[in-house]
Amino acid sequence: MSRATRRRERQERREKASQIPRLPWRNLTNPYPPIEVLSADHVEAIHTASLRVLSEIGIKVLGTDARERMAAAGAEVNDDDRMVRCDPGMVAEFMALAPSNFTIKARNPAKSVTLGGNHVNFGPVGGPSFVTDLDRGRRAGTFAEMCDFTKVLQSLDIIHLGGSGSFEPLDLPAETRHLDRNYAAVTLHDKVWSANLLGGYRARDALEMQCIVHGIEYEDMPNHVVTMGNINTNSPRQLDGNMSAGLTELALAGQPVVVTPFTLLGAMAPTTIAGALTQQNAEALFGMMLCQIIRPGTPVVYGGFTSNVDMKSGAPAFGTPEYVKATQAGAQLARRYNVPFRSSSTNASNVVDAQAAYESEMSIWAAVMGHTNLVFHAGGWLEGGLTASFEKLIIDAEMLQMMAEYLTPVTVDEEALALDAIAEVEPGGHFFGATHTLARFETAFYEPIVSDWQNFESWEDGGALTVTQRANAVWKQLLAEYEPPPLDPGIREALEEYVTRRKAEIDAGPDLLDYDM
Amino acid sequence: MSRATRRRERQERREKASQIPRLPWRNLTNPYPPIEVLSADHVEAIHTASLRVLSEIGIKVLGTDARERMAAAGAEVNDDDRMVRCDPGMVAEFMALAPSNFTIKARNPAKSVTLGGNHVNFGPVGGPSFVTDLDRGRRAGTFAEMCDFTKVLQSLDIIHLGGSGSFEPLDLPAETRHLDRNYAAVTLHDKVWSANLLGGYRARDALEMQCIVHGIEYEDMPNHVVTMGNINTNSPRQLDGNMSAGLTELALAGQPVVVTPFTLLGAMAPTTIAGALTQQNAEALFGMMLCQIIRPGTPVVYGGFTSNVDMKSGAPAFGTPEYVKATQAGAQLARRYNVPFRSSSTNASNVVDAQAAYESEMSIWAAVMGHTNLVFHAGGWLEGGLTASFEKLIIDAEMLQMMAEYLTPVTVDEEALALDAIAEVEPGGHFFGATHTLARFETAFYEPIVSDWQNFESWEDGGALTVTQRANAVWKQLLAEYEPPPLDPGIREALEEYVTRRKAEIDAGPDLLDYDM
Repeated sequence: MSRATRRRERQERREKASQIPRLPWRNLTNPYPPIEVLSADHVEAIHTASLRVLSEIGIKVLGTDARERMAAAGAEVNDDDRMVRCDPGMVAEFMALAPSNFTIKARNPAKSVTLGGNHVNFGPVGGPSFVTDLDRGRRAGTFAEMCDFTKVLQSLDIIHLGGSGSFEPLDLPAETRHLDRNYAAVTLHDKVWSANLLGGYRARDALEMQCIVHGIEYEDMPNHVVTMGNINTNSPRQLDGNMSAGLTELALAGQPVVVTPFTLLGAMAPTTIAGALTQQNAEALFGMMLCQIIRPGTPVVYGGFTSNVDMKSGAPAFGTPEYVKATQAGAQLARRYNVPFRSSSTNASNVVDAQAAYESEMSIWAAVMGHTNLVFHAGGWLEGGLTASFEKLIIDAEMLQMMAEYLTPVTVDEEALALDAIAEVEPGGHFFGATHTLARFETAFYEPIVSDWQNFESWEDGGALTVTQRANAVWKQLLAEYEPPPLDPGIREALEEYVTRRKAEIDAGPDLLDYDM
Repeated sequence: MSRATRRRERQERREKASQIPRLPWRNLTNPYPPIEVLSADHVEAIHTASLRVLSEIGIKVLGTDARERMAAAGAEVNDDDRMVRCDPGMVAEFMALAPSNFTIKARNPAKSVTLGGNHVNFGPVGGPSFVTDLDRGRRAGTFAEMCDFTKVLQSLDIIHLGGSGSFEPLDLPAETRHLDRNYAAVTLHDKVWSANLLGGYRARDALEMQCIVHGIEYEDMPNHVVTMGNINTNSPRQLDGNMSAGLTELALAGQPVVVTPFTLLGAMAPTTIAGALTQQNAEALFGMMLCQIIRPGTPVVYGGFTSNVDMKSGAPAFGTPEYVKATQAGAQLARRYNVPFRSSSTNASNVVDAQAAYESEMSIWAAVMGHTNLVFHAGGWLEGGLTASFEKLIIDAEMLQMMAEYLTPVTVDEEALALDAIAEVEPGGHFFGATHTLARFETAFYEPIVSDWQNFESWEDGGALTVTQRANAVWKQLLAEYEPPPLDPGIREALEEYVTRRKAEIDAGPDLLDYDM
């Protein structure tokens, strides 16, 4: 970014109320080549082994509809044990149909995101049942708190995705909660968000609501990529009915499906990284292939979520050396199939301390330097994903912003080489007053959100706060300053009507479930 | 490392008293290519600009001896303003004499370190006046505490260098304190340590003591690389008498000299990264060239220490995006001259919190993935280098060990691909009891020093400690379990005699200072 642009952005920010510096929205790309932990031969060996998993060992598919589609496409299907086997030719044929990159349109088009190539996008934590902050401690999440979390997310442009609620609002009924989450996603932020794919009806509700937001007909959705969804295989080697139902709805609508095996080494996968990657690759290929069978050309993302467990307790570990290698190897495998890659920013700490930070940094470097296109859970994840933390969200935003600035290439030109400035300052002198410095000092460097660079005495005078304590004040200020992004009143009304109608329908009785579980 | 080796090492460790897992000594190399933030053209542009600094603008050299040596080698020297200018041909001629890699022998030969190529070595913090821990808080350092810190360092094999005291023992007299530090370095650890180069007599004392330890004659030192020393230029563009005196003593003895400009953007260097690197490069080349002039073939290391300052307060910032880019660019410049590179692991936090960790991780990834050969300050640095922290030392060791494990390549062979194990476990089942898992689970994964992967409830039952609080218990246990490495009693006696004699000499009157300051 040019100095002039940056100065203008800072100026604009100052004119607003907040004194909390943040980077403006930026579609992020990584200008450096990916770190590759596997040789080309190793990638081929894992590829070949995973094809043997698919053709010889097979995947168990619980959904009848998905099994039928696989059979019609040429797979060998056994309806007794529900095993599906695909030969290498079939895998190659269908994987060739997947696009290498695509753009998901946000309701604010300036916040659309591109997946593939060297694009990097950060998303917030999703999935926890608990939420925590320094004032109230760890507790079950409510809808009101979930909305607060979303508001803070909206104020952090470094988090490219807005999510549809970063933790479960446990005060709402499980059957209809997805409608409230979707409504909050649309009204509280203007970023891309993912559809909940736990079962076909939830997926369809998200798609219907996106149609209202984007003013498109359901049948015309394949011409408008406006959302995505993630499915996890039930590793090892199983795809349940809920997941294949959700996948099917998204693929039929031409919306991107992220297929993420959950392959913890030693638990749901072999203890060896190569073995876990073999299994991950087989499961990911299977899911992505199913999308192509349902609708050729469906955008898909290869998801990697391979980490190890604590072999003493079986508890999952994150941000470990094994995790870093598996992440970067996963990205290499995705590149082999020319599809985008998804990983995560994770940690296993129970508190927002140095461990939370170093495990997260290991994850972020793994993801970004492996050329992950979609980094899920990068804002607010704590405790192995069981808890969303308000303070961690702020600290994560700082870490992500630092990474984004690192990805901004060094300017090397005559002005930047600064020979005149070097000649101007006396030996042993200083540059504080140099012309070159004065022209730049306001905007020269990355300005942190929450890092404190004061000397010890000033820091002590300021209350000797840890970064986690300072983050507590930051999220409260951002929440207090939150302003909802503009939304057409007609769209809002139509969404409210949709939510009301669907809640009544769901309360009246279970949806017709057209997929076996 | 093979599983068998690892199992044996764990076995050996268990037979000792400590339950604190640590990686064994390992000469670390980085199998992945370096991340390069500059294009080849940019490297040349900075190189060319720095040659103009050396030939047109010049370096101020306070020491008469150093100026005379530069003049004799062909530099243009002005004795009135003490400026020295060197043309590009002279720079190229002398830089061609520097070796691309070399090994420094430790008194325990198994702990010798190699600099150059893709070797990575971690060293402890050095320089602070303060020390801190959770029990006693931040305070001026004493010799007894310095020795405790060194003992903990000795028990952490991931820290390849032992240092000669990680903070100033302020209870000892400034003039003779280096002798006590050197004696502690030799007797408390068995790793490589650096000579204090603040003035010629301190450098000579370190070299004399190394001669006693290694059983070599002073005149024969150039045939035995057994130590090293770091000098900082007085940026911008100045080399003081103390530093050139220390450099000269080491070069005359054929010992490696690390030349590290201290180029904080906007303070001692231009605000632009390219400008600061131009100045850094000129100063580093100047120092390394002076070593070659003094003794052709002297091992030298290009040191990079370019970071930014907080432009509001002027306080130095560390582990920032600017720092990361400058570090990796510095390594590229060092590779251009085919000499080893030194950088650091740094942070600006005043407390061992998440900020300390994320800034350190940014530094570690910058250093390791830039192919730094010598990472100083990687154990215990806090508060911008003003304080050494016992707890941070433990957390740093964890972060470094994780990085070391990341640098261990993934094994991909038939056994690791684990097709049999994948076939053995039922779809949706688990691998805990699989044959493949049982054969490996004890040694399959990195075992942390201080990270806690327990679930929330167990963690809470254990006292809900942060990683910093757990680190407090770890360093105390390591200190309690410390055993000094064996040392020949004759060597110990000779060292004691040397220290006693030199203290008397120094107390009797100032050393003959054969260099202008």
